[in-house]
Amino acid sequence: MPHALPAHRAIHHLTRLRERAPLVHIITNDVVTGFTANVLLALGAAPAMITAVEEVAEFARIAQAVSLNVGTLTAPQADAMRLAALTARDHAVPWVLDPVAAGALGYRTTLCEELLALRPAAIRGNAAEIMALAGTASQGRGVDSLNGSEEALDAAQRLASRTGAIVAVTGATDYICDGDRVIAIHSGDPLMTRVTGTGCALSTVVAAFLATGGAPLDAVASACAVMAVAGKNAARQANGPGSFVPLFLDGLFAMDAATLEDGL
Amino acid sequence: MPHALPAHRAIHHLTRLRERAPLVHIITNDVVTGFTANVLLALGAAPAMITAVEEVAEFARIAQAVSLNVGTLTAPQADAMRLAALTARDHAVPWVLDPVAAGALGYRTTLCEELLALRPAAIRGNAAEIMALAGTASQGRGVDSLNGSEEALDAAQRLASRTGAIVAVTGATDYICDGDRVIAIHSGDPLMTRVTGTGCALSTVVAAFLATGGAPLDAVASACAVMAVAGKNAARQANGPGSFVPLFLDGLFAMDAATLEDGL
Amino acid sequence: MPHALPAHRAIHHLTRLRERAPLVHIITNDVVTGFTANVLLALGAAPAMITAVEEVAEFARIAQAVSLNVGTLTAPQADAMRLAALTARDHAVPWVLDPVAAGALGYRTTLCEELLALRPAAIRGNAAEIMALAGTASQGRGVDSLNGSEEALDAAQRLASRTGAIVAVTGATDYICDGDRVIAIHSGDPLMTRVTGTGCALSTVVAAFLATGGAPLDAVASACAVMAVAGKNAARQANGPGSFVPLFLDGLFAMDAATLEDGL
Repeated sequence: MPHALPAHRAIHHLTRLRERAPLVHIITNDVVTGFTANVLLALGAAPAMITAVEEVAEFARIAQAVSLNVGTLTAPQADAMRLAALTARDHAVPWVLDPVAAGALGYRTTLCEELLALRPAAIRGNAAEIMALAGTASQGRGVDSLNGSEEALDAAQRLASRTGAIVAVTGATDYICDGDRVIAIHSGDPLMTRVTGTGCALSTVVAAFLATGGAPLDAVASACAVMAVAGKNAARQANGPGSFVPLFLDGLFAMDAATLEDGL
Repeated sequence: MPHALPAHRAIHHLTRLRERAPLVHIITNDVVTGFTANVLLALGAAPAMITAVEEVAEFARIAQAVSLNVGTLTAPQADAMRLAALTARDHAVPWVLDPVAAGALGYRTTLCEELLALRPAAIRGNAAEIMALAGTASQGRGVDSLNGSEEALDAAQRLASRTGAIVAVTGATDYICDGDRVIAIHSGDPLMTRVTGTGCALSTVVAAFLATGGAPLDAVASACAVMAVAGKNAARQANGPGSFVPLFLDGLFAMDAATLEDGL
Repeated sequence: MPHALPAHRAIHHLTRLRERAPLVHIITNDVVTGFTANVLLALGAAPAMITAVEEVAEFARIAQAVSLNVGTLTAPQADAMRLAALTARDHAVPWVLDPVAAGALGYRTTLCEELLALRPAAIRGNAAEIMALAGTASQGRGVDSLNGSEEALDAAQRLASRTGAIVAVTGATDYICDGDRVIAIHSGDPLMTRVTGTGCALSTVVAAFLATGGAPLDAVASACAVMAVAGKNAARQANGPGSFVPLFLDGLFAMDAATLEDGL
């Protein structure tokens, strides 16, 4: 039975994030780099995208969190991701996996499975991706899921139990699982699916919240809550997906206790 | 003698696009990835950027259209493009070539000529690029054309005849050619040249419209018409190229029959 | 003792830039490509991002300026940068180095030192980066500097003397140095640090202003002044970093003598 996230816990994590301004080492896809960096800067984190195998080990160990996204995977990037995940694990830096289109394409599915063995602190994906990693039959199409997030709840719990990661399966409702408990976030807005990178950026926000040092289940749920509330509020004011983006970033920048309490 | 595009034909194609939400496999340049994805999402298509040679064949065959853009070409990307075009041809998936700066740089010109043999369904470029592929002397400068689109009309017709592709040469006026007939679109706005990626995004919109299954000449012209009308309307409301972008994306999202009839 | 930049000198350089619309060859990091191109287009320059070793030599020699940024350096990109800088030097094309996170990561620090030998016309960085290149102990964190720009003034002068480049160390105040004279620009706004790419874009604007052919110290200072004034004005109207971006680009597009005089 999913629980709600008390607003005061999300506020606590957001306040910590802003105090610490965690350095988040990101390797992500070519489509969402700028938007992702702007989301983290708006929230108060410090994103850095360091992508070459020559540099990732030196950087991942000094970061407060690492976030890996396979959306436009290439072979050199796969090498860099392996090394970044290994370094993060060895230095106890929490790291997040965003398995974009896992299950739909063999090359990246194999890499994601390999990375799972390096103990991500969290995995954030849509229903099809989480079901694929859990070994459940799913229906994806490109980077989209044709399954609703509620259909992936069991798979998410199993994946969390098997890997030890917090698993966030996001969609109309977000479910955040630790293999036992589930937190559900009902905010957000369908307009967010018409803007590229809202899910990919969320994965890096999850990484930033994990760097606050609080309870991981709460930290991941807080990341989802902040993004969902900002998304719902921006969608209410926007005329479409174009005006959504500046409103969303302004909303993340201005996010406070009153807005989170109203929104959750 | 160029014809106009009846608004009802553009509306027909746009309606089909929104019903089918075609999956468009895109390999494009580093500068325009985010904007391109947002343009397709605003219109109702499903963009996916899969760029590695390990993945493109698996993906191109399940896409409804493929779009290739050589703007920031690298050797690994050239390999991926060859394989994507070959796969698209072999699986009867329509594919589009955007020959950015062809004629100005030898490496990409050679690749574009090689790709032409793989039977693109459409080619979208500025006057200098189309003239270069047709073997006509032209004046480009970087990624810009110093020739007007009307100067490239003969070259576009010859290129269309030789390759079997629909050729769209875009500029102040867009000309869409099948080697015999020509459709001219007079909308658009000079402000679009002050925003990066409007032409590159158009090429992917052409791919999405080709996935609607209608007559290719009409489909390509409809893509140009929708983008030109959205551009003219956004420019009228914008204070400059910065405010243009959100207005343009909102306009694509809201595009309807009345707006297209007014605009054409 | 730093001098102010007379507004009429910045206006003179901006007017020249708009008359010449210089072609600027850019190799930059994956995060800021789109924003960077939009900044240059808004100002009236012609950006082109040509990144492959197969193409850079052919392009750098026809460009009016070259701008190199190591923010998401890879080994193939390092090769392309070496060749672009070498070509620029050999063809008397002014080129700019943006040494993102130099000092923090060994691989890129080594490359930056190698590139310094190829005689950049200007170097633009934050305090930690400039101090690292000058051989002074500094405190960076990721891509951010923990030192204020004023702390790097001596290092900037030494680096300028040693390399012959104009060195711009930017921060709350920008200092532009030629090894002897210093110009200080006090505009800008802290909100600019919450938007990705304002510094990286500035480096390409420096390149565009160097292409106007005026005195280099003045040209670089004019670039900093135009960006700082546009930033200050956009921040005054913005609700946060999201609405800042369109306002900033509109402000660059509309920048004129009166606005520059008011702002400086």
